[in-house]
Amino acid sequence: MAVVPILSDEAAGAEARAVFDDIRAKRQTGFVNNFWRALAHDPALLAATWERLQAVMAPGALDPLTKEMVYVAVSVANGCEYCIHSHTAAARAKGMTEAQHGELMAVIAMAAQTNALATALQVPVDPEFRKEDMA
Amino acid sequence: MAVVPILSDEAAGAEARAVFDDIRAKRQTGFVNNFWRALAHDPALLAATWERLQAVMAPGALDPLTKEMVYVAVSVANGCEYCIHSHTAAARAKGMTEAQHGELMAVIAMAAQTNALATALQVPVDPEFRKEDMA
Amino acid sequence: MAVVPILSDEAAGAEARAVFDDIRAKRQTGFVNNFWRALAHDPALLAATWERLQAVMAPGALDPLTKEMVYVAVSVANGCEYCIHSHTAAARAKGMTEAQHGELMAVIAMAAQTNALATALQVPVDPEFRKEDMA
Amino acid sequence: MAVVPILSDEAAGAEARAVFDDIRAKRQTGFVNNFWRALAHDPALLAATWERLQAVMAPGALDPLTKEMVYVAVSVANGCEYCIHSHTAAARAKGMTEAQHGELMAVIAMAAQTNALATALQVPVDPEFRKEDMA
Amino acid sequence: MAVVPILSDEAAGAEARAVFDDIRAKRQTGFVNNFWRALAHDPALLAATWERLQAVMAPGALDPLTKEMVYVAVSVANGCEYCIHSHTAAARAKGMTEAQHGELMAVIAMAAQTNALATALQVPVDPEFRKEDMA
Amino acid sequence: MAVVPILSDEAAGAEARAVFDDIRAKRQTGFVNNFWRALAHDPALLAATWERLQAVMAPGALDPLTKEMVYVAVSVANGCEYCIHSHTAAARAKGMTEAQHGELMAVIAMAAQTNALATALQVPVDPEFRKEDMA
Repeated sequence: MAVVPILSDEAAGAEARAVFDDIRAKRQTGFVNNFWRALAHDPALLAATWERLQAVMAPGALDPLTKEMVYVAVSVANGCEYCIHSHTAAARAKGMTEAQHGELMAVIAMAAQTNALATALQVPVDPEFRKEDMA
Repeated sequence: MAVVPILSDEAAGAEARAVFDDIRAKRQTGFVNNFWRALAHDPALLAATWERLQAVMAPGALDPLTKEMVYVAVSVANGCEYCIHSHTAAARAKGMTEAQHGELMAVIAMAAQTNALATALQVPVDPEFRKEDMA
Repeated sequence: MAVVPILSDEAAGAEARAVFDDIRAKRQTGFVNNFWRALAHDPALLAATWERLQAVMAPGALDPLTKEMVYVAVSVANGCEYCIHSHTAAARAKGMTEAQHGELMAVIAMAAQTNALATALQVPVDPEFRKEDMA
Repeated sequence: MAVVPILSDEAAGAEARAVFDDIRAKRQTGFVNNFWRALAHDPALLAATWERLQAVMAPGALDPLTKEMVYVAVSVANGCEYCIHSHTAAARAKGMTEAQHGELMAVIAMAAQTNALATALQVPVDPEFRKEDMA
Repeated sequence: MAVVPILSDEAAGAEARAVFDDIRAKRQTGFVNNFWRALAHDPALLAATWERLQAVMAPGALDPLTKEMVYVAVSVANGCEYCIHSHTAAARAKGMTEAQHGELMAVIAMAAQTNALATALQVPVDPEFRKEDMA
Repeated sequence: MAVVPILSDEAAGAEARAVFDDIRAKRQTGFVNNFWRALAHDPALLAATWERLQAVMAPGALDPLTKEMVYVAVSVANGCEYCIHSHTAAARAKGMTEAQHGELMAVIAMAAQTNALATALQVPVDPEFRKEDMA
């Protein structure tokens, strides 16, 4: 189904395997999901993506669960089946309740609907929403 | 710029004006933004959208700021200029700090990137992420 | 495959079951499709979506078949596999012929093509197409 | 604003000018809109697009107004500002009433909303909607 | 899985079969892929699409492999599973190496990421990037 | 127009200014475009994006012009106005001729069209295009 083979630990090169090991260590699990195994054909892309993901998803001004729900929302709007599954699972692992999931769905659907209306009507942006362009 | 005239209070019909008044009352502001004024040509669509928006965006299992940030994320992925401006402004009005905005941007960008990779490689969903289909 | 279980009548709560019954009654069929069964985890979202769908898709200034074909067109552009299947089936049930389906495909493909060209070239909107902004 | 100059009749080459003339003749107007003037840098692309558009949009199993409304729907979902303006104008020129426009908006918004929900929940396609694969 | 039956040579009409034969002759293979067999219900659409594809993908100012990689990039951004598979296969058949595929993935991911950021921040286009509008 | 102020060198912090200087040095120009000035509010995001862009767009198995054209193609499909302008300008700076631009447009339009058709018809992927999943 993938356009590249999904690499097992044995089939992956040493560089990719080191990233797999880091994923296992940081996530404290034996499980390395297919996304990383598909990227393993290009160890530089694999390593860069994994490094960046850790930096972006770390707790900061936003908590990890909020970040996962934003991730799900973008993945839905982009129609990425894999990402919807993996980040919905990640959000649940980080404590998303069914009630929160239901409200997330409702907000995503509402946004999709009003995005379509604002675009269809080509509504001009109110000056009240703009900030000046050059500081 | 819009494909329909943006209706002032005077130009709107009685039904639409009643929705404008409700928006002002609920939001405690004199300001009715262009989105509602563009919808006012179709009072039934205007009223249904406004009713639903209030229900969806009310505090619940998710707090209003989280909902606004999800709304921004969907609007970005859908490329809705109007919605990006209005919901970024709304998130700020609900307390989003610049640090939170920065992290929101980073998560949206990360998701866009891995959405593209998972789609480009057609990565199969791991069975670990699936829930059974029929309860 | 779904991120939530698809609820049978037995597994759904009373509120959701009442919507299922209304779907069966209004559509005069025993069949309740998976979309509603997936929404049934959130009875408020289920009920709101079903109510709104009936209002929007009812015969009015546009006939039901035209509405279904527009629905298919949006679903294709959004890449929604489920919706393409369900609304193509609905359009056929409302009388869409194979010749009409073929022309619908051709228009969708033509629009996708010229959308891409107008966007790629960033063609400015002719003043002739605009209506004035404020009534 | 465009990434290529919008070519006037004088600036266009003979081949492109012939297409401009054909557009004026077929549409019985002196007006050639910017889309064609932007394509005129590549006369082969211009001619192929114009030829195909005429074939696709001609009356057939679907009437021209239905085709224009489908075109608008795709353009909205693809976020093509130019195309939304030009095809909304074309639909009006072919008789679309404000009531029809309002219902078109409502169907587009409804589809965007349920597209998002079906995708977010990854609802599996009901076997009832499928036709067998190989005739 | 398709919304129309995939037509075998026997099930296709004479007009469609003639296109199948032309595909086999031009590509020097016995294999006609499902895309063409799905289009065969509408021989005019099938013939127009095949004619145009040959013209567009022929060697010209861009070589065929570059064109295939651009095709893959658009298909990824549009989330077209079929097209990602068929055009990745076509790019490989035209000589795309795994290193080239890896870099193609990286560019697509980078573009998706900066597209999201530029859209999320609504960055105004620098005057330096614009060409004048009317020649 | 932007949702954040576009930062001049004076308004940017020291960390962001260092990235601006690096952009000027690497590109051998005094010009720092708005994209980077908008990101400068979040120096970590700015630096990470600039570092990654250099790595991805460097000459490798694909030449820089091919990479820019792929970048344009993704930006068109994602409807990113800013990115279409900036990467079309970059492609021209790297030697893209008008003939190459025309063919790029034609391939993008062709892909958009067949993406829509394959999605609309839900064409199943031919087994001939698949590679086995697990190495």
